Amino acid sequence: MIGTILNDEYYMRQALNEARIAFDKDEVPIGAVVVCRGRIIARAHNLTETLNDVTAHAEMQAITAAANVLGGKYLENCTLYVTVEPCPMCAGGLLWSQIPKIVYGAKDEKRGYSIYSPSILHVKTQIISGILAEESAALLKQFFHNKR
Amino acid sequence: MIGTILNDEYYMRQALNEARIAFDKDEVPIGAVVVCRGRIIARAHNLTETLNDVTAHAEMQAITAAANVLGGKYLENCTLYVTVEPCPMCAGGLLWSQIPKIVYGAKDEKRGYSIYSPSILHVKTQIISGILAEESAALLKQFFHNKR
Repeated sequence: MIGTILNDEYYMRQALNEARIAFDKDEVPIGAVVVCRGRIIARAHNLTETLNDVTAHAEMQAITAAANVLGGKYLENCTLYVTVEPCPMCAGGLLWSQIPKIVYGAKDEKRGYSIYSPSILHVKTQIISGILAEESAALLKQFFHNKR
Repeated sequence: MIGTILNDEYYMRQALNEARIAFDKDEVPIGAVVVCRGRIIARAHNLTETLNDVTAHAEMQAITAAANVLGGKYLENCTLYVTVEPCPMCAGGLLWSQIPKIVYGAKDEKRGYSIYSPSILHVKTQIISGILAEESAALLKQFFHNKR
Protein backbone atom coordinates (compact mmCIF):
# COMPACT_ATOMS: atom_id res chain seq x y z
CA MET A 1 0.00 0.00 0.00
CA ILE A 2 2.85 2.36 0.90
CA GLY A 3 4.53 1.36 -2.35
CA THR A 4 1.38 2.25 -4.26
CA ILE A 5 1.11 5.65 -2.62
CA LEU A 6 4.77 6.38 -3.34
CA ASN A 7 4.22 5.39 -6.96
CA ASP A 8 1.12 7.51 -7.23
CA GLU A 9 3.05 10.47 -5.84
CA TYR A 10 5.94 9.83 -8.18
CA TYR A 11 3.75 9.79 -11.26
CA MET A 12 1.69 12.73 -10.05
CA ARG A 13 4.89 14.70 -9.73
CA GLN A 14 5.50 14.00 -13.41
CA ALA A 15 2.01 15.31 -14.18
CA LEU A 16 2.79 18.37 -12.05
CA ASN A 17 5.93 18.94 -14.12
CA GLU A 18 3.67 19.00 -17.19
CA ALA A 19 1.40 21.51 -15.45
CA ARG A 20 4.42 23.73 -14.83
CA ILE A 21 5.32 23.58 -18.53
CA ALA A 22 1.78 24.78 -19.28
CA PHE A 23 2.20 27.57 -16.70
CA ASP A 24 5.37 28.76 -18.42
CA LYS A 25 3.43 28.90 -21.72
CA ASP A 26 0.72 31.04 -20.11
CA GLU A 27 -1.72 28.13 -20.36
CA VAL A 28 -4.05 27.11 -17.50
CA PRO A 29 -1.55 24.90 -15.63
CA ILE A 30 -2.92 21.37 -15.71
CA GLY A 31 -0.78 18.37 -16.58
CA ALA A 32 -1.30 14.65 -17.10
CA VAL A 33 0.64 11.46 -17.69
CA VAL A 34 -0.52 8.00 -18.69
CA VAL A 35 1.27 5.07 -17.09
CA CYS A 36 1.12 1.54 -18.47
CA ARG A 37 2.74 -1.30 -16.51
CA GLY A 38 4.95 1.14 -14.61
CA ARG A 39 6.09 3.04 -17.69
CA ILE A 40 5.03 6.58 -18.63
CA ILE A 41 3.72 6.25 -22.19
CA ALA A 42 2.25 9.74 -22.60
CA ARG A 43 2.80 13.20 -21.15
CA ALA A 44 0.56 16.16 -21.88
CA HIS A 45 -0.44 19.59 -20.64
CA ASN A 46 -3.25 21.95 -21.36
CA LEU A 47 -2.77 23.68 -24.73
CA THR A 48 -6.12 25.36 -25.34
CA GLU A 49 -4.54 28.77 -26.04
CA THR A 50 -1.59 27.53 -28.09
CA LEU A 51 -3.76 25.28 -30.25
CA ASN A 52 -6.73 27.65 -30.24
CA ASP A 53 -8.88 24.66 -29.30
CA VAL A 54 -11.10 24.26 -26.24
CA THR A 55 -10.81 20.47 -26.53
CA ALA A 56 -7.01 20.50 -26.01
CA HIS A 57 -7.14 19.67 -22.31
CA ALA A 58 -4.23 17.70 -20.88
CA GLU A 59 -6.33 14.55 -20.41
CA MET A 60 -7.70 14.55 -23.97
CA GLN A 61 -4.26 14.84 -25.47
CA ALA A 62 -2.96 12.17 -23.09
CA ILE A 63 -5.69 9.75 -24.22
CA THR A 64 -4.85 10.33 -27.89
CA ALA A 65 -1.09 10.11 -27.33
CA ALA A 66 -1.31 6.95 -25.21
CA ALA A 67 -3.49 5.22 -27.82
CA ASN A 68 -0.91 6.09 -30.46
CA VAL A 69 1.84 4.47 -28.39
CA LEU A 70 -0.23 1.38 -27.61
CA GLY A 71 -1.48 0.97 -31.19
CA GLY A 72 -5.00 0.36 -29.90
CA LYS A 73 -7.63 2.82 -28.86
CA TYR A 74 -8.43 1.32 -25.45
CA LEU A 75 -6.18 2.17 -22.51
CA GLU A 76 -6.44 -1.16 -20.73
CA ASN A 77 -3.86 -1.68 -17.97
CA CYS A 78 -3.22 2.06 -17.87
CA THR A 79 -3.55 4.73 -15.21
CA LEU A 80 -4.09 8.41 -15.90
CA TYR A 81 -2.54 10.89 -13.50
CA VAL A 82 -3.86 14.42 -13.78
CA THR A 83 -3.20 17.36 -11.48
CA VAL A 84 -6.84 18.48 -11.30
CA GLU A 85 -10.17 16.66 -11.34
CA PRO A 86 -11.28 16.07 -14.96
CA CYS A 87 -14.18 18.09 -16.41
CA PRO A 88 -17.17 16.28 -17.96
CA MET A 89 -15.51 16.36 -21.41
CA CYS A 90 -12.37 14.67 -20.17
CA ALA A 91 -14.24 12.25 -17.90
CA GLY A 92 -16.39 11.32 -20.90
CA GLY A 93 -13.27 10.71 -22.98
CA LEU A 94 -11.79 8.60 -20.19
CA LEU A 95 -14.98 6.53 -20.06
CA TRP A 96 -14.69 5.77 -23.77
CA SER A 97 -11.00 4.88 -23.31
CA GLN A 98 -11.92 2.13 -20.82
CA ILE A 99 -9.01 3.19 -18.62
CA PRO A 100 -9.28 1.25 -15.34
CA LYS A 101 -7.65 3.76 -12.96
CA ILE A 102 -7.61 7.53 -12.63
CA VAL A 103 -5.60 9.47 -10.06
CA TYR A 104 -6.17 13.19 -9.70
CA GLY A 105 -4.78 15.90 -7.47
CA ALA A 106 -6.97 18.87 -6.62
CA LYS A 107 -10.76 18.89 -6.71
CA ASP A 108 -12.36 21.23 -9.24
CA GLU A 109 -15.29 22.69 -7.34
CA LYS A 110 -16.65 24.51 -10.40
CA ARG A 111 -16.06 22.28 -13.39
CA GLY A 112 -15.19 18.85 -11.99
CA TYR A 113 -17.14 15.94 -13.53
CA SER A 114 -18.32 14.77 -10.11
CA ILE A 115 -20.41 17.92 -9.65
CA TYR A 116 -22.32 17.13 -12.84
CA SER A 117 -22.55 13.35 -12.54
CA PRO A 118 -20.14 10.88 -10.93
CA SER A 119 -21.59 8.25 -13.29
CA ILE A 120 -19.83 9.83 -16.30
CA LEU A 121 -17.00 7.52 -15.25
CA HIS A 122 -17.66 3.78 -15.14
CA VAL A 123 -18.61 2.41 -11.75
CA LYS A 124 -15.68 -0.03 -11.94
CA THR A 125 -13.07 2.67 -12.65
CA GLN A 126 -10.76 3.06 -9.67
CA ILE A 127 -10.55 6.73 -8.73
CA ILE A 128 -8.00 8.14 -6.31
CA SER A 129 -7.97 11.83 -5.47
CA GLY A 130 -5.94 14.22 -3.35
CA ILE A 131 -2.43 13.17 -4.46
CA LEU A 132 -0.27 16.35 -4.39
CA ALA A 133 -3.54 18.26 -4.32
CA GLU A 134 -2.13 21.30 -2.53
CA GLU A 135 0.73 21.81 -4.97
CA SER A 136 -1.61 21.39 -7.94
CA ALA A 137 -4.15 23.82 -6.52
CA ALA A 138 -1.45 26.33 -5.58
CA LEU A 139 -0.13 26.39 -9.14
CA LEU A 140 -3.62 27.12 -10.51
CA LYS A 141 -4.21 29.78 -7.86
CA GLN A 142 -0.94 31.48 -8.74
CA PHE A 143 -1.85 31.39 -12.44
CA PHE A 144 -5.23 33.04 -11.95
CA HIS A 145 -3.79 35.51 -9.44
CA ASN A 146 -1.23 36.64 -12.04
CA LYS A 147 -4.05 37.09 -14.57
CA ARG A 148 -5.86 39.64 -12.44
CA MET B 1 -40.41 29.78 -37.72
CA ILE B 2 -41.09 27.60 -40.76
CA GLY B 3 -37.95 29.09 -42.32
CA THR B 4 -35.94 28.09 -39.27
CA ILE B 5 -37.26 24.54 -39.35
CA LEU B 6 -36.47 24.25 -43.05
CA ASN B 7 -32.96 25.53 -42.38
CA ASP B 8 -32.47 23.12 -39.51
CA GLU B 9 -33.54 20.26 -41.77
CA TYR B 10 -31.26 21.45 -44.55
CA TYR B 11 -28.20 21.58 -42.30
CA MET B 12 -29.09 18.33 -40.57
CA ARG B 13 -29.19 16.70 -43.99
CA GLN B 14 -25.60 17.84 -44.46
CA ALA B 15 -24.73 16.25 -41.13
CA LEU B 16 -26.50 13.09 -42.26
CA ASN B 17 -24.36 13.08 -45.41
CA GLU B 18 -21.32 13.10 -43.12
CA ALA B 19 -22.80 10.19 -41.15
CA ARG B 20 -23.16 8.24 -44.42
CA ILE B 21 -19.49 8.89 -45.23
CA ALA B 22 -18.63 7.39 -41.82
CA PHE B 23 -20.89 4.41 -42.57
CA ASP B 24 -19.03 3.75 -45.82
CA LYS B 25 -15.75 3.74 -43.87
CA ASP B 26 -17.13 1.18 -41.42
CA GLU B 27 -17.23 3.82 -38.68
CA VAL B 28 -20.18 4.28 -36.31
CA PRO B 29 -22.27 6.54 -38.59
CA ILE B 30 -22.57 9.89 -36.83
CA GLY B 31 -22.02 13.17 -38.63
CA ALA B 32 -21.91 16.84 -37.72
CA VAL B 33 -21.65 20.27 -39.27
CA VAL B 34 -21.05 23.69 -37.74
CA VAL B 35 -22.94 26.60 -39.23
CA CYS B 36 -21.94 30.21 -38.68
CA ARG B 37 -24.17 33.00 -40.02
CA GLY B 38 -25.79 30.63 -42.50
CA ARG B 39 -22.54 29.19 -43.81
CA ILE B 40 -21.22 25.68 -43.11
CA ILE B 41 -17.72 26.24 -41.71
CA ALA B 42 -16.95 22.67 -40.61
CA ARG B 43 -18.03 19.15 -41.56
CA ALA B 44 -16.99 16.06 -39.63
CA HIS B 45 -17.87 12.43 -39.04
CA ASN B 46 -16.90 9.88 -36.48
CA LEU B 47 -13.36 8.56 -37.10
CA THR B 48 -12.59 6.61 -33.92
CA GLU B 49 -11.50 3.49 -35.84
CA THR B 50 -9.58 5.24 -38.61
CA LEU B 51 -7.70 7.47 -36.17
CA ASN B 52 -7.47 4.81 -33.46
CA ASP B 53 -8.74 7.42 -31.03
CA VAL B 54 -11.84 7.27 -28.83
CA THR B 55 -11.95 11.06 -28.72
CA ALA B 56 -12.45 11.39 -32.50
CA HIS B 57 -16.22 11.81 -32.34
CA ALA B 58 -17.84 13.93 -35.06
CA GLU B 59 -18.65 16.75 -32.64
CA MET B 60 -15.12 16.99 -31.21
CA GLN B 61 -13.60 17.23 -34.65
CA ALA B 62 -16.24 19.75 -35.69
CA ILE B 63 -15.39 21.98 -32.69
CA THR B 64 -11.67 21.89 -33.53
CA ALA B 65 -12.24 22.45 -37.26
CA ALA B 66 -14.67 25.32 -36.74
CA ALA B 67 -12.28 27.08 -34.33
CA ASN B 68 -9.55 26.77 -36.95
CA VAL B 69 -11.77 28.44 -39.53
CA LEU B 70 -12.87 31.20 -37.16
CA GLY B 71 -9.38 31.85 -35.82
CA GLY B 72 -10.75 31.94 -32.28
CA LYS B 73 -11.52 29.10 -29.94
CA TYR B 74 -15.09 30.14 -29.05
CA LEU B 75 -17.91 29.24 -31.41
CA GLU B 76 -20.03 32.33 -30.84
CA ASN B 77 -22.80 32.84 -33.40
CA CYS B 78 -22.51 29.18 -34.43
CA THR B 79 -24.87 26.22 -34.45
CA LEU B 80 -23.78 22.60 -34.28
CA TYR B 81 -25.91 20.06 -36.13
CA VAL B 82 -25.26 16.44 -35.20
CA THR B 83 -27.22 13.36 -36.20
CA VAL B 84 -27.29 11.84 -32.71
CA GLU B 85 -27.46 13.29 -29.20
CA PRO B 86 -23.95 14.14 -27.96
CA CYS B 87 -22.30 11.98 -25.28
CA PRO B 88 -20.96 13.62 -22.08
CA MET B 89 -17.52 14.07 -23.68
CA CYS B 90 -18.93 15.96 -26.65
CA ALA B 91 -21.45 17.90 -24.57
CA GLY B 92 -18.57 18.91 -22.29
CA GLY B 93 -16.56 20.08 -25.29
CA LEU B 94 -19.55 22.01 -26.58
CA LEU B 95 -19.91 23.71 -23.18
CA TRP B 96 -16.30 24.89 -23.34
CA SER B 97 -16.84 26.12 -26.91
CA GLN B 98 -19.61 28.47 -25.74
CA ILE B 99 -21.68 27.52 -28.78
CA PRO B 100 -25.15 29.05 -28.35
CA LYS B 101 -27.23 26.49 -30.29
CA ILE B 102 -27.15 22.73 -30.74
CA VAL B 103 -29.49 20.76 -32.99
CA TYR B 104 -29.44 16.99 -32.83
CA GLY B 105 -31.37 14.23 -34.54
CA ALA B 106 -31.91 10.95 -32.70
CA LYS B 107 -31.84 10.52 -28.93
CA ASP B 108 -29.07 8.30 -27.56
CA GLU B 109 -30.82 6.34 -24.84
CA LYS B 110 -27.59 4.73 -23.62
CA ARG B 111 -24.85 7.32 -23.90
CA GLY B 112 -26.61 10.65 -24.43
CA TYR B 113 -25.41 13.46 -22.17
CA SER B 114 -28.93 14.14 -20.92
CA ILE B 115 -29.05 10.74 -19.18
CA TYR B 116 -25.99 11.68 -17.15
CA SER B 117 -26.69 15.34 -16.53
CA PRO B 118 -28.55 17.88 -18.67
CA SER B 119 -26.49 20.58 -16.92
CA ILE B 120 -23.34 19.53 -18.78
CA LEU B 121 -24.61 22.00 -21.37
CA HIS B 122 -25.11 25.61 -20.32
CA VAL B 123 -28.64 26.52 -19.28
CA LYS B 124 -28.71 29.25 -21.94
CA THR B 125 -27.70 26.95 -24.80
CA GLN B 126 -30.61 26.50 -27.19
CA ILE B 127 -31.13 22.78 -27.80
CA ILE B 128 -33.37 21.42 -30.52
CA SER B 129 -33.81 17.67 -30.97
CA GLY B 130 -35.64 15.31 -33.28
CA ILE B 131 -34.63 16.85 -36.64
CA LEU B 132 -34.35 13.93 -39.13
CA ALA B 133 -34.24 11.66 -36.09
CA GLU B 134 -35.68 8.64 -37.86
CA GLU B 135 -33.18 8.70 -40.70
CA SER B 136 -30.28 9.19 -38.29
CA ALA B 137 -31.44 6.36 -36.04
CA ALA B 138 -32.10 4.06 -39.03
CA LEU B 139 -28.54 4.51 -40.28
CA LEU B 140 -27.14 3.58 -36.87
CA LYS B 141 -29.48 0.59 -36.61
CA GLN B 142 -28.39 -0.66 -40.02
CA PHE B 143 -24.73 -0.27 -39.04
CA PHE B 144 -25.05 -2.31 -35.86
CA HIS B 145 -27.28 -4.87 -37.61
CA ASN B 146 -24.55 -5.43 -40.23
CA LYS B 147 -22.00 -5.89 -37.42
CA ARG B 148 -23.85 -8.84 -35.91
